[in-house]
Amino acid sequence: MILTVTLNTALDLTYRVRSLRPHASHRVSEVVERPGGKGVNVARVLAALGHEVTVTGFAGGATGQVLRERLAGTSGPVDALVPVAGATRRTIAVVDGRSGDTTQLNEPGPQIAPAEWGTFLDRYEELLAGASAVALCGSLPPGVPVGAYATLVRTARALGVPALLDTSGEPLRRGVAARPDVIKPNADELAELTGSHEPSRATQDARRRGARAVVASLGADGLLAVTPEGRWRAAPPSRVHGNPTGAGDAAVAGLLSGLVENLDWPARLTRAVALATATVHAPTAGDVGRTAYDELLARVLVTAA
Amino acid sequence: MILTVTLNTALDLTYRVRSLRPHASHRVSEVVERPGGKGVNVARVLAALGHEVTVTGFAGGATGQVLRERLAGTSGPVDALVPVAGATRRTIAVVDGRSGDTTQLNEPGPQIAPAEWGTFLDRYEELLAGASAVALCGSLPPGVPVGAYATLVRTARALGVPALLDTSGEPLRRGVAARPDVIKPNADELAELTGSHEPSRATQDARRRGARAVVASLGADGLLAVTPEGRWRAAPPSRVHGNPTGAGDAAVAGLLSGLVENLDWPARLTRAVALATATVHAPTAGDVGRTAYDELLARVLVTAA
Repeated sequence: MILTVTLNTALDLTYRVRSLRPHASHRVSEVVERPGGKGVNVARVLAALGHEVTVTGFAGGATGQVLRERLAGTSGPVDALVPVAGATRRTIAVVDGRSGDTTQLNEPGPQIAPAEWGTFLDRYEELLAGASAVALCGSLPPGVPVGAYATLVRTARALGVPALLDTSGEPLRRGVAARPDVIKPNADELAELTGSHEPSRATQDARRRGARAVVASLGADGLLAVTPEGRWRAAPPSRVHGNPTGAGDAAVAGLLSGLVENLDWPARLTRAVALATATVHAPTAGDVGRTAYDELLARVLVTAA
Repeated sequence: MILTVTLNTALDLTYRVRSLRPHASHRVSEVVERPGGKGVNVARVLAALGHEVTVTGFAGGATGQVLRERLAGTSGPVDALVPVAGATRRTIAVVDGRSGDTTQLNEPGPQIAPAEWGTFLDRYEELLAGASAVALCGSLPPGVPVGAYATLVRTARALGVPALLDTSGEPLRRGVAARPDVIKPNADELAELTGSHEPSRATQDARRRGARAVVASLGADGLLAVTPEGRWRAAPPSRVHGNPTGAGDAAVAGLLSGLVENLDWPARLTRAVALATATVHAPTAGDVGRTAYDELLARVLVTAA
């Protein structure tokens, strides 16, 4: 089983409007509601690839209830979320029908009490006992200590479970110091972590800070991986147009899936880029187009960097 | 008891962001969640004025559950909402922290089945038996016939209950033809109904279409009332700055409150303008500042028009 952790789960709403104009009133023509938060998205892709996957983190309130009902309604991830008193946040993606561009509004998330964090830590350790790998994903809700990911990485290492960390800011900085197996920052997150806007230099610097492997996502340019086994660039076969929502999460699923199947790095990166690219092409934000994925697998370019 | 009808109730969310920029990602710093829909807002103001008030309309899904829990948690309106299978819509008001301006996103509302509409009609007739007046407010959710308000106005007239209609577009056009006691269009709604952008002419035309009295809300200029008893303008004492959300609903509450207390038209209009103005001044969208209201009551200017 692969475990994904989403401390700040979300009920993701996608609103379609004709054209978003600040300070105007808009009729939303279409509402799509689904379970979200990075780790939940990663789990959905892993399940679609045929992996057994369990999601944990926090869920609470009416929004948390809807999230759990929707998770239960799929043949996908197993729900091991920890109930909390506060309400799971909503995120709203407002899609402009004219340009296709998306405006994102993210609620901060519920206040997590110290006892709830303690309950989670116990549950996490139990779940790790049956896990072949763990993904630690996304922002921290209020009340969770800023060093949370460092704690979770250390626990995974102590139990011999490979950990992939995908977060940003101070939680990333502290988490990296705890020596995760893989981090997957985007260009902005990497620059914030290292102070360098030059991906090659920044990626090496991130390894020096403690990450065993760094896979930097460079948007439409694909991935740059710096690992103990070598350095590679992996790029989609052609320029990608579409909605990048969820592409990073799909890439994380590809990396984890390849890790638990003991694929070599070039094969893992191929899978990650093919999944991310298929997600960008998909008509619904965050979905993976299976046919597009299969077709892309043969066409991703991996080169030594 | 005063009855308010909100066929398209809403869970109203107010999001505060630093500055809304299309196609960017925003952290929401503050989330306020409360029961909404025009008739629910009217009921809240009526309850604050000390009236017994009952709300009906539809509520369903997780959002409807939250709405009903919140209603029950106040010492305000009595909940006589009819349960439906679909989920109550959300509306989102995004308040720009820099300019204070609001961008509004309104979901369309749940699909109402014919049987649910039938159940509502029965409930409505029962409730009217104990009502001294009824307010029919807001948009229609999908599935409700476009002539819904005409039906509801006729039922109220048959039972001798004065009806105030506050809606727009085709539902307003049809509702007016059923001869409601009062309509309260804003300038845009009035122009859409009559084809005239000149308030005095448009107001008279709206009366000819069937409304016994027309109270047009002209934004910061206050109200223009054309009634069988005379014509008046009612204006706030000075130019109003603030958030106009809920001002129209507060004005409806003022008109209805004055109607059931048998106040004359100048007194009803004074109350409506004072409540609307106090709402615009209030720090929270849609709230009425009680002190501001009491102070404004003495200063609203009503003149024959």
